[in-house]
Amino acid sequence: MIYLDNAATTFYKPQEVKNAVADALTFYSANPGRSGHDLSVKTAEKIFEARERINDFFNGYGSEYVSFTLNCTQALNTAIKGILKKGDHVVISTFEHNSVLRPLYKLKQKGLVDYSVFQVFEDEEKTLNSFKNAFRNNTKLCVVTSVSNVFGNILPIRKLSQIAHNYGALFFVDGAQGAGVISIDMKMQGIDCLCIPGHKGLYGPVGTGAIIHKGLSFETLVEGGTGTESLMLKQPESYPERLESGTLNVAGIMGMHAGVEWVKSYGLKKILNAETLLTKEIFYGLKSIKNIKLYSEVFNEEKRAPLISFNVEGLHSEQTTMLLNEGGIAVRGGFHCAPLAHSFMGTKQTGTVRISPSIHNTKKDINILLNLIEKIAF
Amino acid sequence: MIYLDNAATTFYKPQEVKNAVADALTFYSANPGRSGHDLSVKTAEKIFEARERINDFFNGYGSEYVSFTLNCTQALNTAIKGILKKGDHVVISTFEHNSVLRPLYKLKQKGLVDYSVFQVFEDEEKTLNSFKNAFRNNTKLCVVTSVSNVFGNILPIRKLSQIAHNYGALFFVDGAQGAGVISIDMKMQGIDCLCIPGHKGLYGPVGTGAIIHKGLSFETLVEGGTGTESLMLKQPESYPERLESGTLNVAGIMGMHAGVEWVKSYGLKKILNAETLLTKEIFYGLKSIKNIKLYSEVFNEEKRAPLISFNVEGLHSEQTTMLLNEGGIAVRGGFHCAPLAHSFMGTKQTGTVRISPSIHNTKKDINILLNLIEKIAF
Repeated sequence: MIYLDNAATTFYKPQEVKNAVADALTFYSANPGRSGHDLSVKTAEKIFEARERINDFFNGYGSEYVSFTLNCTQALNTAIKGILKKGDHVVISTFEHNSVLRPLYKLKQKGLVDYSVFQVFEDEEKTLNSFKNAFRNNTKLCVVTSVSNVFGNILPIRKLSQIAHNYGALFFVDGAQGAGVISIDMKMQGIDCLCIPGHKGLYGPVGTGAIIHKGLSFETLVEGGTGTESLMLKQPESYPERLESGTLNVAGIMGMHAGVEWVKSYGLKKILNAETLLTKEIFYGLKSIKNIKLYSEVFNEEKRAPLISFNVEGLHSEQTTMLLNEGGIAVRGGFHCAPLAHSFMGTKQTGTVRISPSIHNTKKDINILLNLIEKIAF
Repeated sequence: MIYLDNAATTFYKPQEVKNAVADALTFYSANPGRSGHDLSVKTAEKIFEARERINDFFNGYGSEYVSFTLNCTQALNTAIKGILKKGDHVVISTFEHNSVLRPLYKLKQKGLVDYSVFQVFEDEEKTLNSFKNAFRNNTKLCVVTSVSNVFGNILPIRKLSQIAHNYGALFFVDGAQGAGVISIDMKMQGIDCLCIPGHKGLYGPVGTGAIIHKGLSFETLVEGGTGTESLMLKQPESYPERLESGTLNVAGIMGMHAGVEWVKSYGLKKILNAETLLTKEIFYGLKSIKNIKLYSEVFNEEKRAPLISFNVEGLHSEQTTMLLNEGGIAVRGGFHCAPLAHSFMGTKQTGTVRISPSIHNTKKDINILLNLIEKIAF
């Protein structure tokens, strides 16, 4: 099988990640931060180390502001619901995922908050204008994805955050597709809160994630045992525990940390360059095939992460995906949990076929892919 | 090190569990329920299998009503907050953990719900009376732990659930300490919703858990991508997806499933008998040592799970724990995230030292433990 569905999760996972997970289960399998014995302390130290390194990787505001979650979705729910109060307004991009849309839609249905959507154009000025026009007097928060999970657009995070801050709003980033793929620097880019998965660009195990913030006051979504201030009925105020109730996924966190180290030692830039080369080849390969619909004119590598959506004329994306799967190629069809993106691009009927290479893919993979698509589209 | 902190998490994990986790990372590392390709489908099948077997293990109401969570705490928050509406009243036991207390306390502080606490006595009739007296006209829900995580009391689940149902209330069980340790049968015991961790009595990896229910209508705590009905802004109604937003912890779930199979093949009864024998030996051993405070007169194995709390007169539980740790024995001191239990037992100043053996412990471990405690207490 040629795996080109790395935007869903990267496959395969580096040996270092597998080793870290195996180590966790064998040598660090106590409950961190609960008991005071050596094994528990040793385990807590491993978690602390992961927090430190992940904070460094994104140039965050201190390891205490890194809280581990089940996944990026849980991190986003924690961030969004934890900061909004009744009457607040939110600005989001048209490329937001259901992990942002569904929580906001629910809050809106309950009459608690409202939100506006700005469009993302190829022309950055138009994007920034659309963004500015979305603000209201009561805009408390902007939530913006770093990369569209459907069309690969890289959003101009720094410019957007400057505008948001000028309007007095907080700026949160959904790092689902960007973390480990493009450079994310919280301080430099003005990110007040970053939500990430561990299993995509960071090459860790699935079912891992984190919320990384600059020391904000979040109301909690989940309360419970934190191993601290046990006699207090109120959830502790101190981070990271405030956002980490119950026993953490130690193996997942150690795997995620190993993934981060792996990306660092390989070099994020080097990975991105290699993936971008392959993606460009896919893009111009597809462009030369008849009956293929692409969703941008050129492949501008400054503005595109290494993922592409396309369709074969006359076929639903799921049909194309199925045919590719029969030919031994794994990609994803459908809507990718991002309904507004499809409204914007006019792909609400068919969805799109998404191709997302990783560092493990080769030119040969791409040739096989393009040959098969050519046959399907013929 | 002699590990006697299995109520925090079981150590060591069976080889079968480690193998399942390693397999997950190597062979099933796609995103289940997202893409339609073979690897994703194979992964989804593994998750489905885990759901089926875990549902069977607890005699639940169908695998669609098993949703995987980060841990038992998240499962309890999902269950409690998902079912309660403004004006509801809840009945809980004095042995509830902060994972039940803190969410309820928060809801109470917000003026949304109220709760009452019933006491658990050695005399079951007194317990049932205390339970009955806690009900009000607006009691919607009872949340009761299967086993006290501090004192080991096994609660009379079946009798309590009958009373709750007679009063028209739902009956939820916190299976944190009971799952995999004592027999839990949802249908037979009248449990409407069971929350479990995967890493204690079920011997799976830490950071795993599930909410298992009888097809109740839960409001959601977290919304996001479910891989289903992607174009819909509303969280889907169908289970298990409704309670499973974002990418699941596949390795953890496969490990948890392997843990369940391991417990089944070893035999839950056989494990319990062996652990109970050891615990009885600890109990009567401690009883014969001077300056030891125990919290029940006898060890009634029908009513006690294999865990014991004690104190050395004149020492804080954390001091005793530290001395035991220096002697190479891992137990847990402090409050174990269960404040009401300590108010009830009068241990709010010192906390308790908790000893919790597993199937991996031996008589020799217990002898070393008792000898060391004797020296500390002398």
